[in-house]
Amino acid sequence: MKEIILGLLQDKKYNQLKDVLNYVAPQDLAGFIQDEEHTDLEPYMLVLFRLLSKETAAEVFVELDTEHQEELIKSYTDAELRGILDEMYLDDTVDIVEEMPASVVKRILKVADPAMRQQINDMLKYSKDSVGSIMTVEYVSLKKTMTVAEAFDRIRSNGVDKETIYTCYVLDGGRRPEGIVTAREMLLADPSTPISELMNENVISVRTDQDREEAVNIFRKYGFLALPVLDSEGRMVGIVTMDDAMNVLEAENTEDIEKMAAITPSEKPYLHTGVFSTWLQRIPWLFLLMISGTFTGMIISSFEEKLSVLVCLTAFIPMLMDTGGNSGSQSSVSVIRGLALGDVTFKDFFRVLWKEIRVALLCGVSLAAVAFVKVIVIDGLLMKTTGVDWQVALVVAVSLCVTVIVAKTVGCTLPLLAKKLGFDPAIMASPFITTIVDALALLAYFFFATSILSARFI
Amino acid sequence: MKEIILGLLQDKKYNQLKDVLNYVAPQDLAGFIQDEEHTDLEPYMLVLFRLLSKETAAEVFVELDTEHQEELIKSYTDAELRGILDEMYLDDTVDIVEEMPASVVKRILKVADPAMRQQINDMLKYSKDSVGSIMTVEYVSLKKTMTVAEAFDRIRSNGVDKETIYTCYVLDGGRRPEGIVTAREMLLADPSTPISELMNENVISVRTDQDREEAVNIFRKYGFLALPVLDSEGRMVGIVTMDDAMNVLEAENTEDIEKMAAITPSEKPYLHTGVFSTWLQRIPWLFLLMISGTFTGMIISSFEEKLSVLVCLTAFIPMLMDTGGNSGSQSSVSVIRGLALGDVTFKDFFRVLWKEIRVALLCGVSLAAVAFVKVIVIDGLLMKTTGVDWQVALVVAVSLCVTVIVAKTVGCTLPLLAKKLGFDPAIMASPFITTIVDALALLAYFFFATSILSARFI
Repeated sequence: MKEIILGLLQDKKYNQLKDVLNYVAPQDLAGFIQDEEHTDLEPYMLVLFRLLSKETAAEVFVELDTEHQEELIKSYTDAELRGILDEMYLDDTVDIVEEMPASVVKRILKVADPAMRQQINDMLKYSKDSVGSIMTVEYVSLKKTMTVAEAFDRIRSNGVDKETIYTCYVLDGGRRPEGIVTAREMLLADPSTPISELMNENVISVRTDQDREEAVNIFRKYGFLALPVLDSEGRMVGIVTMDDAMNVLEAENTEDIEKMAAITPSEKPYLHTGVFSTWLQRIPWLFLLMISGTFTGMIISSFEEKLSVLVCLTAFIPMLMDTGGNSGSQSSVSVIRGLALGDVTFKDFFRVLWKEIRVALLCGVSLAAVAFVKVIVIDGLLMKTTGVDWQVALVVAVSLCVTVIVAKTVGCTLPLLAKKLGFDPAIMASPFITTIVDALALLAYFFFATSILSARFI
Repeated sequence: MKEIILGLLQDKKYNQLKDVLNYVAPQDLAGFIQDEEHTDLEPYMLVLFRLLSKETAAEVFVELDTEHQEELIKSYTDAELRGILDEMYLDDTVDIVEEMPASVVKRILKVADPAMRQQINDMLKYSKDSVGSIMTVEYVSLKKTMTVAEAFDRIRSNGVDKETIYTCYVLDGGRRPEGIVTAREMLLADPSTPISELMNENVISVRTDQDREEAVNIFRKYGFLALPVLDSEGRMVGIVTMDDAMNVLEAENTEDIEKMAAITPSEKPYLHTGVFSTWLQRIPWLFLLMISGTFTGMIISSFEEKLSVLVCLTAFIPMLMDTGGNSGSQSSVSVIRGLALGDVTFKDFFRVLWKEIRVALLCGVSLAAVAFVKVIVIDGLLMKTTGVDWQVALVVAVSLCVTVIVAKTVGCTLPLLAKKLGFDPAIMASPFITTIVDALALLAYFFFATSILSARFI
């Protein structure tokens, strides 16, 4: 497909190209232009956009990345820019304004008509994670005294500009929602039916200042196509549509996953983040965790004398620490995900704890049994490591069992406590848990070593 | 709200209750019945369901968990069960059939009419992760010779049973899709317009046997409300709707997160998984990783003699291993997420590698500098640990820098290779990377110790 477009462009067969462009989805066209492996279409971007209808141009424009958008805005005339801004939904315009450098923003605001300028400025005031920042101000409002036929007339005369016409909102004189009616209900009803008979009065809504994640949870629960957004006085100011909610969902998931891996979240895709920014996202956590790893070192130092007597004990430290870290992160990640999905809340604290303790016992005992046999057979009999006997195997096995139990207890407790204290539970994942569990695992190990092997340390 | 429902039930004010139930969303009603803290509504479940309209009853039923569904099916008469099955969408029925014990499935299939029985059996054949398993067979099909008015007549007479009427499919005589037309386009057009003029001939579709994740990626890219599903001969057999896609998205995200934490994914929410099942999800990975930790132990064993000469070296092992593990998991998780979102593909191998190496250099050098100063000042001057001097600090710093570079290289490479070889990149996260990086970190450490401190080991 891309080859056809390129060929027609090079041969300047613009009329044929216009026909061909009807068969390309806007998202795909944007993809062709941005293709990083073959940038052959890039020089023709402006020509291509001038061939598109205003509506399609706006759709393709929204799909472009920031760099290409900026380039296009700069090469556009004021009239062209105004044309494309008129076709775009306001939430998309605001997203673009937020990404552009000041000079480009100035030009957008200059070209926009005063009403649009005002709306853009209003939307920019909402904080980044709020419902306000993802809402669309274009929606269909009806009056409850209308009939279905009148409602359809209104949709026909107003609906072209609205992001969705499938969910319509019945508002009173003060723009407060009285009910919701879907295009489906109206299509299936007799045209003379009054809207008041069809509408569902149980209006589930969100406020502009709520966290956008709460809006996503409502979509997940109820499966709506759109959700009304009210201001602090209960007046309807916009809607959030399901595809916006899906984008937020993906962004929040990425954020959680990054936090779990000790990365400061960024909004940009991986390959579009610079080396320095990536370093900034990662280094503070590595520093923090390295410094806290000092305590683990101190525990080993304090045991140094005994380790020098029975050096074989050192060989089991990595296995103990890793198994502890893995066990802990299994529990913490399960709980973090449960919290994110709403399956687990702080109220379940003791249910979670009781479950994890039982799982930990099962895991701890089975791992300890395998480790006991492994140390005796592999390290003792096969590799004949100096000093390894059944007592050392016992120390390793018991420490392992205790470590797993401690790791899972800490792992399930910390995310719940973080949530309760208003922190993001996702930061209580592997790296944090590992650091804490390492220290506890070593303490347990050296405690059992001292007790069980006391005779050898004279 | 729940208190009102309970009060009216206890006072047997069923007529008033019917009115009240109109104001409750089906998802909320299901939530009230399943409330695990206050199970006071549970005994009234059957009474409550008998008060609901068949349609609402079906909606609430779908939202219940498996245990409550089973209980209700068992207490329902055949006629009641048939009534509710008739109202449900086929994909939901199939989901329920898949969860129920054999005796209940038998009863459902007995009660269903022959056509539905056939459809259920057809759907059950699709593999769990395929598009077929999440599709709905109910959709609106139109002919391109129809006018908008005729299309609306068809929707009115057939649309009540369809999960979505907003996206309609124009099929030819062989049920192959020729175009797509939305309710929006039809509503905004003149009633006499022929469908062939409105329809978009660029039909993007999926096949029943494709991975459901691919369907989700199409939703994410194009923002459709529904996606047509074709069989192997290109005939349309169903649709996937956006809310189903959103559920799959969440399930796939959970699966990825679980795999990254070395947990075998399960379909059940955390608190509904038994202790034994949770153990089964976790223990194989812990065993595997514990056994592979043996190699790390072997590396330490082979260095035991030298460690006994300079025991202070042992204290830095946990810090080295943890920093390596954290650095590696940052890179692997970034790449795994990039792959899942489609931001990164195998083609980007060298771009990713080049980026990670530069980030690793920045991270490695900054961490090494801090570690060097820390070892000299804290371990050497403040804690006066035996044997610690600037040479030991140098060994730690250089090893740390090399470890971070190796960790990030391995971390970004393995998920890409896994993807290329057809494995799930998500398993190449922290636990695996940590185990590999631990071994490499120790090898580097002991290599630099032997080289730089050679004089002390005589």
